[in-house]
Amino acid sequence: MSEERTELSDLGEFGLIDRLAEKLNPKQESTVKGIGDDAAVISSGEQYALLSTDMLVEGVHFDLSYVPLQHLGYKAIAVNVSDIAAMNGKPSQVVVSLALSNRFSVEAIEVLYSGMRAACEDYNVDIIGGDTTASRSGLVISVSAYGTVSEDNIAYRSGAGKNDILCVTGDLGGAFVGLQVLEREKQTFLGNPNMQPQLDKYQYIVQRQLKPRARMDVIHELKELGVVPTSMIDVSDGLASEVLHLSKASGVGFSVYEEQFPIDRQTYETAVEFNLDPVTSALNGGEDYELLFTIKQEDHAKLEKHADIHFIGHSQDLEKGNLMITKKGNHVALQAQGWNHLSPDNE
Amino acid sequence: MSEERTELSDLGEFGLIDRLAEKLNPKQESTVKGIGDDAAVISSGEQYALLSTDMLVEGVHFDLSYVPLQHLGYKAIAVNVSDIAAMNGKPSQVVVSLALSNRFSVEAIEVLYSGMRAACEDYNVDIIGGDTTASRSGLVISVSAYGTVSEDNIAYRSGAGKNDILCVTGDLGGAFVGLQVLEREKQTFLGNPNMQPQLDKYQYIVQRQLKPRARMDVIHELKELGVVPTSMIDVSDGLASEVLHLSKASGVGFSVYEEQFPIDRQTYETAVEFNLDPVTSALNGGEDYELLFTIKQEDHAKLEKHADIHFIGHSQDLEKGNLMITKKGNHVALQAQGWNHLSPDNE
Repeated sequence: MSEERTELSDLGEFGLIDRLAEKLNPKQESTVKGIGDDAAVISSGEQYALLSTDMLVEGVHFDLSYVPLQHLGYKAIAVNVSDIAAMNGKPSQVVVSLALSNRFSVEAIEVLYSGMRAACEDYNVDIIGGDTTASRSGLVISVSAYGTVSEDNIAYRSGAGKNDILCVTGDLGGAFVGLQVLEREKQTFLGNPNMQPQLDKYQYIVQRQLKPRARMDVIHELKELGVVPTSMIDVSDGLASEVLHLSKASGVGFSVYEEQFPIDRQTYETAVEFNLDPVTSALNGGEDYELLFTIKQEDHAKLEKHADIHFIGHSQDLEKGNLMITKKGNHVALQAQGWNHLSPDNE
Repeated sequence: MSEERTELSDLGEFGLIDRLAEKLNPKQESTVKGIGDDAAVISSGEQYALLSTDMLVEGVHFDLSYVPLQHLGYKAIAVNVSDIAAMNGKPSQVVVSLALSNRFSVEAIEVLYSGMRAACEDYNVDIIGGDTTASRSGLVISVSAYGTVSEDNIAYRSGAGKNDILCVTGDLGGAFVGLQVLEREKQTFLGNPNMQPQLDKYQYIVQRQLKPRARMDVIHELKELGVVPTSMIDVSDGLASEVLHLSKASGVGFSVYEEQFPIDRQTYETAVEFNLDPVTSALNGGEDYELLFTIKQEDHAKLEKHADIHFIGHSQDLEKGNLMITKKGNHVALQAQGWNHLSPDNE
């Protein structure tokens, strides 16, 4: 081994992935798309097979002092379903690997599994396999999802053309602000274990954090409406980060309009209560698992009346960069400041 | 949550899987086979898609004080390829998730990846995706493999008939005895850090432990010879455990003949040196990743001259049980004493 030592935090997650992916040259005829999208694509008869994988690590992605095991199980499935959704695909099966320390009882694992089964029920997915092993420390959950999509319907990150309309589903920033609430309650509880958590007021955003939903409903509706997004990604790391992914993959820039950002009232008010900027929370808060996608202008009319799809911007020449147009009309360069689990702050 | 608390070690890995699987009722039409075989099976046009997953956890499955990262990478891929092989399938793609603590440098991860790439090269597999995240403690590697097999060629654990011939590839017990060598060298080194490891004499069995190979060569040869195993499993937990899996899934018993067990000379001699019984090492030592399978009697002639396939027994009425016939002619009931990563001893 060489003497050189580059810290993981110097590269960050995306830098590391880029560096590792450089040397991976897919050689199998059936590999349609390797690293670099929400899911990998494999040709498989008349359909494309989609494969995604996500790992949730205790102490990094979740804190069992406030995340109920049932919700955690639900989320582990939902985030993978979301990856398949982001390819405009339909998930059908998952395999689940667990590393467990012996502080978990069989009953606790059954509760975790009941959450997974609930998600599988909601998204019409079967758990068909897995691996169960010991862990020396925390709980690790690795889920891989299998889905399908036809060649005509697949939506890569790379397909946005110029002057496409940028859309996002649902609302943004809620999961991030919900996390702040949970963290505060944890601190309060640690300070005074007799205090009961005050979560009623924050129910929606706490739910956004603890039990995100994958937007398969939107995938089905797009199909019914005859709209195939030109590009798509799910919002796991924050809007800004995802816009930049679409930009890089598609070779176009984007303008996004602050005034169009869908921010729920509870998200907004709680952000203010926590001295957070609601817009920054929407831009850089992660884990909303909404869908961000582009459509051709001619498809606008088909989605115009959809209550849960918001038109937040448009694509443009790459040279124009990626900009947020503020309510005051200022142009601000978009920067990704989303989750980076490999940065020292998160370790 | 109920007050009941059942320890994971009371159930063991297989017990836990059975208990969790009970409540998983596959509902998707495309799910051909869920939990309970080496890989899950999904219908996908003319072919079946195969999906397997394995998780390797530092301190449980590997000890970085003697496992080189490159070998670890190789092994992480090979064990998944072996799962696909055990369905008589051909792997083509894998996705890889890593949880890394910041004691790893980027260069170290590149070495790990170079081992994975080497395995992918050997087995004609592409790495097409993954997830990379931080870990609060040790290294966790989760690999899911995708492969295909035709409906006519698939080999489940459940297909053995009565009076089928039981075959095993390669030799057994080497990986287990190799592990004892590595553990001893570690202790010697901890006692006196100036000691250089003495591994030359044990090269074959150390290699069996550190860099197991998946027997795709045998899968290809079986195809060329026109033999479809009636049942198959890979030897990851030890011969006895795997025979019992085939027995349970197929509803037949087995007789295996001690004198037919393929044990390499180095395995045998080293076992004796370590005061281990070579036959017990072959029966209960894990991680050989050879293939254990049954064939119809009429196929015997096709494999008879194969240098690396050994005929170690036959199936029989379930009522006769699973027996080892010793060299002296005694009948001993087979018991699984293979790896159990959930038992307290391994934690």
